Amino acid sequence: MLADDEVARGREDFSGDMAAYHAAFDVIAADPNNTLYVWDHEGTAMGCMQLTFIPGMSYHGSWIAKVEGVRVDRSLRGLGIGEQMIDAIVAKSRARGCKQLQLTTNKRRVDAQRFYKRLGFEASHEGMKLDL
Amino acid sequence: MLADDEVARGREDFSGDMAAYHAAFDVIAADPNNTLYVWDHEGTAMGCMQLTFIPGMSYHGSWIAKVEGVRVDRSLRGLGIGEQMIDAIVAKSRARGCKQLQLTTNKRRVDAQRFYKRLGFEASHEGMKLDL
Repeated sequence: MLADDEVARGREDFSGDMAAYHAAFDVIAADPNNTLYVWDHEGTAMGCMQLTFIPGMSYHGSWIAKVEGVRVDRSLRGLGIGEQMIDAIVAKSRARGCKQLQLTTNKRRVDAQRFYKRLGFEASHEGMKLDL
Repeated sequence: MLADDEVARGREDFSGDMAAYHAAFDVIAADPNNTLYVWDHEGTAMGCMQLTFIPGMSYHGSWIAKVEGVRVDRSLRGLGIGEQMIDAIVAKSRARGCKQLQLTTNKRRVDAQRFYKRLGFEASHEGMKLDL
């Protein structure tokens, strides 16, 4: 699902050596502030996302949550799976005491922005990136 | 500096019990993926920012860096301190092996967006937030 994506196309390479991806998975799995979720139905992966908890000084010293890499299998879009996934992330972030859930989405993802606004997200910020 | 800010005004409260801020500081200080930096000149705090390292699956399983709460003392703006601070963050992020440096900045911070664009950041994403 990470490779089958309009914006990320060409960015990832799953055809050859997967060692870097496996190593990254292990790092995330070992980190208590990072979790990769797979949305599963009877053994079939339908969606995935990464949730990060970040301690901060703002908002009276609150934790915030950040969700990244939200993907739903292309053949299963429009069924409400994405909304269920975000609802689950909201619940997990609240349970952890986070005061805000953040995400950035490429400006080309117009459907995604409409989707997140419908769920109550406010597009209040510019998401700026510098490749290193 | 976090309280003396146009956008955050009213959000923080440093007048009373500081226990929540002190606790948050201790959590950040103990976290190897989070660092609060104070830009100091001969014992005077001139600026501050928080840097977070996040492991990820994208970009061939790369770490990314996120900088938040970038503030320069109001009386010291326009002297190039912010640029020195971001240069330092870029160097630290590269040294850690991060492939990208991200930030979100409130759309009302027009000067900040101009500043980051001048340093090479691309405003490619919508930064969306949901209060919990």
